Amino acid sequence: MSSYQTIHSHHSHHGWDNTLVPVKHVVPGEIVEFEVRDASGGQLTAKSDASAVPSLDFACINPVTGPLYVEGAEPGDAIAVEMLDFAGVGWGWTAIIPGFGLLAEEFSSPFLHISEYDDQRVRFVDGIELETAPFPGTVGLAPAAPGHHSVVPPRRVGGNLDLRDLTRGSTLYLPIEVPGGLLSVGDTHAAQGDGEVCGTAVETQFSVTVRIGLLKQANLPAPQCETTRSLRRSRRDDKGFYVTTGVGPDLMQASRDAIRAMIDHLGKHYGLAPEMAYALCSVAVDMRIGEIVDIPNWVVAAQLPKGIFL
Amino acid sequence: MSSYQTIHSHHSHHGWDNTLVPVKHVVPGEIVEFEVRDASGGQLTAKSDASAVPSLDFACINPVTGPLYVEGAEPGDAIAVEMLDFAGVGWGWTAIIPGFGLLAEEFSSPFLHISEYDDQRVRFVDGIELETAPFPGTVGLAPAAPGHHSVVPPRRVGGNLDLRDLTRGSTLYLPIEVPGGLLSVGDTHAAQGDGEVCGTAVETQFSVTVRIGLLKQANLPAPQCETTRSLRRSRRDDKGFYVTTGVGPDLMQASRDAIRAMIDHLGKHYGLAPEMAYALCSVAVDMRIGEIVDIPNWVVAAQLPKGIFL
Repeated sequence: MSSYQTIHSHHSHHGWDNTLVPVKHVVPGEIVEFEVRDASGGQLTAKSDASAVPSLDFACINPVTGPLYVEGAEPGDAIAVEMLDFAGVGWGWTAIIPGFGLLAEEFSSPFLHISEYDDQRVRFVDGIELETAPFPGTVGLAPAAPGHHSVVPPRRVGGNLDLRDLTRGSTLYLPIEVPGGLLSVGDTHAAQGDGEVCGTAVETQFSVTVRIGLLKQANLPAPQCETTRSLRRSRRDDKGFYVTTGVGPDLMQASRDAIRAMIDHLGKHYGLAPEMAYALCSVAVDMRIGEIVDIPNWVVAAQLPKGIFL
Repeated sequence: MSSYQTIHSHHSHHGWDNTLVPVKHVVPGEIVEFEVRDASGGQLTAKSDASAVPSLDFACINPVTGPLYVEGAEPGDAIAVEMLDFAGVGWGWTAIIPGFGLLAEEFSSPFLHISEYDDQRVRFVDGIELETAPFPGTVGLAPAAPGHHSVVPPRRVGGNLDLRDLTRGSTLYLPIEVPGGLLSVGDTHAAQGDGEVCGTAVETQFSVTVRIGLLKQANLPAPQCETTRSLRRSRRDDKGFYVTTGVGPDLMQASRDAIRAMIDHLGKHYGLAPEMAYALCSVAVDMRIGEIVDIPNWVVAAQLPKGIFL
């Protein structure tokens, strides 16, 4: 059995800063476990309800564990983060936070939903189960630009990418801008759809075990990743999909239209209230760009796997 | 065996107009075969090369077969088009047309590539095979707005959606704006990736057999569709994916960045020239919206199935 180092969750920071002192140093090839706190930084519990959302302290949102210094890592190289294992706490939260999310103008009331999960399934509500697919929403390096940078937006060096590909067996490649890279990990999710449209996934606390690699002179323009298998699993996908679209000259507006249509579909056909439907879209519906060339109108597709309904 | 009507390809039109005289009338439940011409309207052949691209007559581009009048169809209803069968000619073209496509500014020279296909495989080049997944790129109704409307952009009543979901077994729902709906079908593809980034797919001639349905008072905001199985097939997907990203505040720019990075990846790792890589992205790479909420930067992912490389 490999030995590995652990970075405990009290070694966390909020935002990115290339002057932060590394918690540990590793050489490429080493395995590291990151103990990650949930995106609320422990402010929400399995007993919380919507009343807890307005009082969230945003200064404590999305703590990331790290930073880790990778020996030999230099600007122009890429750090490879191979996802080896995830150990979670069995419950997660999905919130609608006023002012945040794709449909922030229509969904202005706080909302909180708690799901339970095991290694196989996320029980969203009775009759709706997602497959558990843990990944870290935030994996990033320190940017070269001096100062403190918010953890909310992702950037060239990664960060809050919310890329659901990063499940067990996949490898993320991040362009390095400062010596050592300064890798931090946070914002673990038990399940998420492409887009994360309401702004949150099934937010939960996982320990993330990764193998660190280094690609010299990779000169990547932005994050890239690689998976070893399909992102899809057969039980969920074998029932096919229902797809809504937004059609128009602006991809953002088309995305909103596609999700509005999906929320309407989930209400009409499955009896879901709008807030629950919006939250379900965020954790289970995938946003695709159907076509982006038939000038002047593009097609954004929102894809619901019918297999989540038992 | 069901009997069905055929609409032959000489019953075609260019663009949408609600005054066109229907070629046939059907009642809901009937099966209709649309003989479709390729998107060049026969201007390109299996022997054509890039020199044929600049002389394409755009007045003859993307002919659609129809229109078909559906008895009982009224504004507010939706026509259901269930894809039953496809019969193709075995070869298709993929072009880079100057001024058209996601990266039109960088790819300004005409380019043409011919692929062969059978029921299972599209042979793109030696060593690269896609799974044959026929669908009509253009399925649409006449808009309520008077006059002639270009066939290029899709709109609320469908049209040039280029939605690769519309393979055998799926059903497209289109909102009706004029009595009878006036359905036409064209632009058949043997394979396409989400986005159709270079502007063309594996463009080819298929006969498309569909069952016509009618949903009264569906009041759809835009096209929707439903599939009965995964869009993905195991042989192609079991090798996993390579994913590039574009990260930034504009989805269009992020999409361009993701495809530029994928073209670079295909060049470095598979030796593909930029034009071939761009064309391969159009027929095999899927554009996803990774996240659309982490203000102000969104993530667009371009997803390459590694299984296309033999």
